[in-house]
Amino acid sequence: MAPTSPILVLDSGLGGLTVAKALRNALPHEDILYFGDTARLPYGSKSAVTVTSFVRQIIGYLRPHNPKHIVIACNTATALALPALRSEFHDLSISGVIDPGAKAAVAAAGAKEHPIIGVIATEATIRAKAYDRAIHRRRHHARLLLRPTPLLVPIIEEGRRSDDPVVRLVLKQYLAPMVQRHMDVLVLGCTHYPILKGLIQRMVGSKIKVIDSAEQCAEDVARRLRSAGLLRGDTIAPGKLRSFVTDDSPRFQSLASRFLGFEVEKPKWVAPDELISVPAPTEIRRAV
Amino acid sequence: MAPTSPILVLDSGLGGLTVAKALRNALPHEDILYFGDTARLPYGSKSAVTVTSFVRQIIGYLRPHNPKHIVIACNTATALALPALRSEFHDLSISGVIDPGAKAAVAAAGAKEHPIIGVIATEATIRAKAYDRAIHRRRHHARLLLRPTPLLVPIIEEGRRSDDPVVRLVLKQYLAPMVQRHMDVLVLGCTHYPILKGLIQRMVGSKIKVIDSAEQCAEDVARRLRSAGLLRGDTIAPGKLRSFVTDDSPRFQSLASRFLGFEVEKPKWVAPDELISVPAPTEIRRAV
Repeated sequence: MAPTSPILVLDSGLGGLTVAKALRNALPHEDILYFGDTARLPYGSKSAVTVTSFVRQIIGYLRPHNPKHIVIACNTATALALPALRSEFHDLSISGVIDPGAKAAVAAAGAKEHPIIGVIATEATIRAKAYDRAIHRRRHHARLLLRPTPLLVPIIEEGRRSDDPVVRLVLKQYLAPMVQRHMDVLVLGCTHYPILKGLIQRMVGSKIKVIDSAEQCAEDVARRLRSAGLLRGDTIAPGKLRSFVTDDSPRFQSLASRFLGFEVEKPKWVAPDELISVPAPTEIRRAV
Repeated sequence: MAPTSPILVLDSGLGGLTVAKALRNALPHEDILYFGDTARLPYGSKSAVTVTSFVRQIIGYLRPHNPKHIVIACNTATALALPALRSEFHDLSISGVIDPGAKAAVAAAGAKEHPIIGVIATEATIRAKAYDRAIHRRRHHARLLLRPTPLLVPIIEEGRRSDDPVVRLVLKQYLAPMVQRHMDVLVLGCTHYPILKGLIQRMVGSKIKVIDSAEQCAEDVARRLRSAGLLRGDTIAPGKLRSFVTDDSPRFQSLASRFLGFEVEKPKWVAPDELISVPAPTEIRRAV
């Protein structure tokens, strides 16, 4: 792989586009390949075995593009699959969204020894305790308020906006008990949630710092590439963004521009059956 | 196949359990095999190609059980995949949920030549126009109010109850414009929705007849088996219910009893990879 190789951004569907957008802002000259597993989304209600097998297939399918870095731009997939896939694909550079988010949350808590850090995320992310570990590794005595918020992804994917009373009521139900418990920092532990960041910040009030894991993740990727000498540098041409989806539904096109903030080319459709035929890395090694 | 063969009930996840429950009530002595494609749910936001390929795999996987009838207990899968799969698997008896629901809706409209029939369903079901065709075939001049209601499935799967203000607000947003347009009948065009039937009936008022496609579908299956001489008859033993799921998540167990009204045995886990290896029927025919 070389500085001209693409960065791979993987997600269950659309949410990871907030990471692609943050990456594009941080590193405008990089080529990005975005993969949304739209036929099998969401991941947030599913098990580690299932999610790991899905992400393994996607990495297997895209590795011929020789990526210089792979970002698992989905909190659920990071929580359930990142450790296993890092050791399976040990020749690839892979990172996720949880560690950068946890790091930023602890930094935002300042010098407090017992900060109260809230995390909203999918059921699977909360159950996997990935944020608990990532935060406690950095601040042993942080107190955590962990809240699964499964309705937020469907609300965002339905295209509802911040002024919709349903959005406000649902957020109030989820957030009010956390605010009452004097949370210092709130982590948006799902890459969909930055779409509602403005409203969430207004609802929790300006004293609570809201951490956007998509932004943090993009900064982390920029740091990794810089220190590996793999940045593309200041070429004149802007980087390209190509997308792949497993379901060719009209939803991707209609929602992608909302997540990205700019129009996206029609994605290439890869049926789930095409992913299945990719051999697992152990089989590759055996064949060599 | 024989009267002792099982009935197959297929769904994207849990919703089809309302059909299994109605079948169990209508035909208590029948054995039921229930398949919930929990690794790839929901189907309601996905395309016809994707949903058809998923259901094809499931039928292929379960056909060795020699079912006497297959019910596609999911409105989206019925709308997007039933016609194609009926012709592919022409040696199997397959029915869906839409035709029985449409028939009951037209019957409930009475003698009105221009009844106003409302349908709430997933985005994919509405887009596929399957209810339009099934209703207009029976009552040419029926007026339709079609409303995608994508938030209802996640609301139900989160375990929210009828007294939750979010449930009431979301239903009000979806239903109030339909009620204002003097709807005569409302079809619950998704097998999840019967869970909220009581509340929906109260919200639309007693003048509007609410049609539960799960119940109608079960009656339709009973009729089909009776006329084919394939009913099991009045044995003493109650029928068995066995379940299969593609994702082994704790959600199925915790929600299944709410949908069924009784406890269910732990389902057998079938990873999506096991489904993929089933050859398409054309390949089977070629091999013979």
